[in-house]
Order: sequence, then structure tokens, then C-alpha cells
Amino acid sequence: MSSDPHTPSDAPSRPPRGERRLIQTLASGLALPGAAGIPFGDDMAGLDAGDAPLAWTVDMLMDGVDFDSRTHSWTLIGRKAMAVNLSDCAAMGVAPVAALIALALNNRLSLEDAVAIETGANAAAAAHGCAILGGDTNSWDAPTVISITLAGRPAPGTLPVLRSGGRPGNDIWLSGPVGGSLLGRHLDVRPRIELGQILARSPRATAMIDVSDGVALDLSRICEASGCGAEIDEDLMRAAIHPDAVRIAATTAQPPLHHALRDGEDFELLVALDPRDADAARALGLLPIGRLIAERGLFLRHPDQSRSALEPRGWEHFR
Amino acid sequence: MSSDPHTPSDAPSRPPRGERRLIQTLASGLALPGAAGIPFGDDMAGLDAGDAPLAWTVDMLMDGVDFDSRTHSWTLIGRKAMAVNLSDCAAMGVAPVAALIALALNNRLSLEDAVAIETGANAAAAAHGCAILGGDTNSWDAPTVISITLAGRPAPGTLPVLRSGGRPGNDIWLSGPVGGSLLGRHLDVRPRIELGQILARSPRATAMIDVSDGVALDLSRICEASGCGAEIDEDLMRAAIHPDAVRIAATTAQPPLHHALRDGEDFELLVALDPRDADAARALGLLPIGRLIAERGLFLRHPDQSRSALEPRGWEHFR
Repeated sequence: MSSDPHTPSDAPSRPPRGERRLIQTLASGLALPGAAGIPFGDDMAGLDAGDAPLAWTVDMLMDGVDFDSRTHSWTLIGRKAMAVNLSDCAAMGVAPVAALIALALNNRLSLEDAVAIETGANAAAAAHGCAILGGDTNSWDAPTVISITLAGRPAPGTLPVLRSGGRPGNDIWLSGPVGGSLLGRHLDVRPRIELGQILARSPRATAMIDVSDGVALDLSRICEASGCGAEIDEDLMRAAIHPDAVRIAATTAQPPLHHALRDGEDFELLVALDPRDADAARALGLLPIGRLIAERGLFLRHPDQSRSALEPRGWEHFR
Repeated sequence: MSSDPHTPSDAPSRPPRGERRLIQTLASGLALPGAAGIPFGDDMAGLDAGDAPLAWTVDMLMDGVDFDSRTHSWTLIGRKAMAVNLSDCAAMGVAPVAALIALALNNRLSLEDAVAIETGANAAAAAHGCAILGGDTNSWDAPTVISITLAGRPAPGTLPVLRSGGRPGNDIWLSGPVGGSLLGRHLDVRPRIELGQILARSPRATAMIDVSDGVALDLSRICEASGCGAEIDEDLMRAAIHPDAVRIAATTAQPPLHHALRDGEDFELLVALDPRDADAARALGLLPIGRLIAERGLFLRHPDQSRSALEPRGWEHFR
């Protein structure tokens, strides 16, 4: 699902709603099915296709929300739009195969701008052996919208890694340090495609998601799908704080740990693994941050072994 | 590709550009490939998938351009957004299988509005055995955008019908009368799914497209892809004028024939067939309107056998 570089803001006077509730309403009320062994609401959906089931996903990016065309080139914006989709492939452990691009171009854009978007997107895709196969191009007076659909395929002998396979006792790992991506990294997304495919095989992740909306919120999604809770060790998490989170904390009223837990658009992988895979995980450069627990809820365990509840908050659209 | 209920307007002082030129630029400059036997730029793209190749397509609809949320219910809008995609399946002669929905919801929409969009879209899809499998939900201050990606599968033993198989001497047929859909029919799209699949088998269409941007413009797309021209018989075309084209002509400065040739959003099928299939075409209720010719260009043949050039104009985004 989509993500946003903006700092989340709450609106406590409004009724609680959100993308999560919309998805739940749809999944229950409309009885929307899964396919190819992937339930509704995962990073990608399934797509039954003969002897080679596919996974597919769509991400929509809007000017002024997910990118800012006043400060970034259309090539860079196109590249990011594709990269966030590629990151969904990483989170499922599948290889990206092909893409479609739908555009609503603001009327002030030139043909060259439109080509720049496609060129940037195509370059990001081609770097992973993925091709743009078609799309839909429109123009209007409102800000530009880029919607990319991406299809991926599990490597032979593997199945997509779901959010729902996590079990109490699993360790939780990050593929790299997080936080402060708004300082620039959010535009230079490096989707963890190869690592995702390794984790679809061995050591096989029990659950996986990419950090698009913040470690806390994305971890809560694994917990919800897996029917469990999670505990993050403050000490371990401090070792996974990106230098950008320290830099951005100097400009906000929040500590670096807050940014590491809440900031979106890192696109690192958040991975649940059996404890027996700890050595293999370390060998892959993964950083441990905690564990799944049977008790529902999200908790932060402090160095003195006390713990506090961690709100599953981050960036959520349509709150 | 997308379509629009608005009456097309020309801007002769601006440089000629358009969706067509963008697609050509992309296809040549980026060397974008086709897949599963479908070249870049057809109604749907190919998607290689083991023993069962798929076709897929995306259509993006914007509030104030493709629909008007001030006058239409969100359920009806959701239904239309799905129906224009289903019509692409009809134009390729494939069965719709599954869909993804990406939304940029204007912030004033309620959760119920969002559910209404999905409910309408899901109903249109389910009527043809197609399921919504996932999506991406976002919110912003600009008008609502709905982008639907649809995957379809050729019936066993058939291949998708391309735009590019037309040959000089083929007859051109319409699946129903056209023009004036803006009076209301454009919101009540009846995708010609079953007819499309019949025309993928027998009588096998050599080329097919759905009338989304007007008979003249969509026929020119078949001609361009097939490397030929076309001649429309004025007498035959007059017999394919929808009553709505007569009604709308009473309010515009244009004759009904103009509306039948230029208006978009009819979603009837425009079909090229070998002349030997004429009886079978009539038995299916198709209306003959002309023929493909070797000479490039689009022409209208008048009752006195003189002919005039027909501009391949209709609705084209990003002109």
C-alpha cells in the first residue's frame, strides 16, 4: 500500500477511520477473495495464471503528497514511482516481471516531461529485468498522478512471502537502518529485490513487509495478519537508527528513536525469522530489533526491562 | 487507452502533440517491448505467464474529466471505472479475470463514499466473473482519481484480437449504434465481453477496438496499427447513428453524423472482418459501416460516390 514522506499528523476530533478500516470493510463486506494463495490486503495480490502464478500490485503517487515536482525532476519522480512498486516485490520475495503506467498529467507538463517520467520509471524497472508494457495517459488541470501496476513472479520452487506467517518467538529483523528518509533518501529508493528473493528461499522469512509507512505501523500490519503481537528492544532499535534520523531530529521536537520508529519511506525489509535462522540473518547483514509475541499489541522494551505500549502509528492515508 | 465524455476542442495555436505521439515516442525511444504476442500500444498489453499468457490493461478516470461527482453517485462512478476496463477486455476478445483498484480520494469523501466506489466497481466486475484482488488507497485535497488495472485471459484455443491484423478489403462493422453517449449512456457502459470473445474465435476478427474516443479516431488507430486506410460509407454510417446523437445534435451546431463519428464513450466494438464473414457478422447483429483500403488515410464516401477526407479526430488526451 502507499506511503508518504510527510510527517504524520493526527486529527483527534475526527472519527477514527483509515486505509486499514477501509481495507477491512472491503475484505469483509464485499467478501473480496484472495488468489494464488495470497490473501486480500498483503503487499501484493495473487493472480492465478496457469502453471506460473503471479503476484501484482499497484501504487499511486500524487504531486504534492508523495513527491514535489517543484523541487524534483520528472525523471527522478518516475524512478521513485517505479521503485516503490519494486519494493513491494522485494517484500513478497518475487522477481518483478512487467509494469503498466497510468498518468494524469497536469496540463502544464510538456511532452518531454511525460517522456521523462516514463524514462525514469523504465530505468528503475530495467535495472531489475522488468519491462514497461503499456499504460494510460491523461491530462487535466489538477496535480499530476502516477499509478504504476507491477507484476512479479516467485523464483522456481519458492512461494511469495506473506505478512501472515509470523509466529510468536520469531525474531524481527531490519535489512538496514531507518528514519529520516525525508532528508532525501525517500527519492533514492533502492528496492531490496535480491535480498527479498533470498528470504523467500533460505533462510525463509515467516513474514515480511517493506517499511513504507514506518517500522511501528508496518510491524503492526505483520502482527495483525499473523494474529500476534511484537516487542521491540530499545537497545537493538537504537543500533538501527539511520544517521538521517539523527540529523532530522535536530530540526524537530522528536528524538532520533521516534523518527526510526515512525518515519515512512525507508523501503528496508522488516522480516520475521525463526530463531534458528539468526546466524544466517546476521550473515545477510540484517539487524535484529525484537521479536513476535503471543500477546496482542506493540511494545517497546526499555534497557531497564520495563516496557511501554507503542502506538501502531506512522503514515496512514485516509485517516 | 482512456477516453472522455467531453466534446473535443482543438487548440490550433499549440504545437501538435498528444497521447499518440507520446506512445510513439515511448515505443521507439525507450524500445518498450511487447509481450505474449501483443505489441506495445494495443487495447491491452501482454503478460507472459507460463502456459496461460494473460492480457492486462489500466484505465485512469479523473473527477471533473471522466465523471462528475457533483451529479453522479460514487457507486455509479465505480461501476463505470470498472466497465471501461472491461470494455478493453471485450476489444481484445479475452475474459476478465481479476482487478486492482488504486484511489486518490478527495479529502471530503467519507469511508462510505470509498466503499461505494469499490462496491460499484466490484459489482461490474463480478457480473463478468471478475474479482477485485487488491489496490492502493490514498487521500488528498485534489479531485478524486480512480485507476483500475484489469487482467484478462483468452478463452482456450483463442488468441487476443489485436488492432494490427486488419487488411485492405476487410469490412468494418460496429456492434451497435453510436453517438451522443454524453446524454447518459457513457455512465451505463455495457461492455461487449461475450461478443468480443465470439469474435476472437468465429467469425474471427482481423482487428478490433472499442469505441472509447470516437469512431473516426479509434478507426484511425486500427488503420495505423494495420498499415492501411479506411473508407466509411455515409449511407451505412447514417444507419448506425444512435438516437442520442440526433437528440444531442439538436443542442449543438453539429449534425447527428458528426456526433456518430466523433463522440467518445460508446464502448461498442469496431471490428474488421474478412468479407466472407459478412453473413456471420449480420447474424451477430453487427452493423456494416465501410471497409479497410490500401490507401492510407480516413475517408467518408458520400451517396454520390464522391469522397472527402475524414480527420482522425475525436477525444485525445494530452493534445
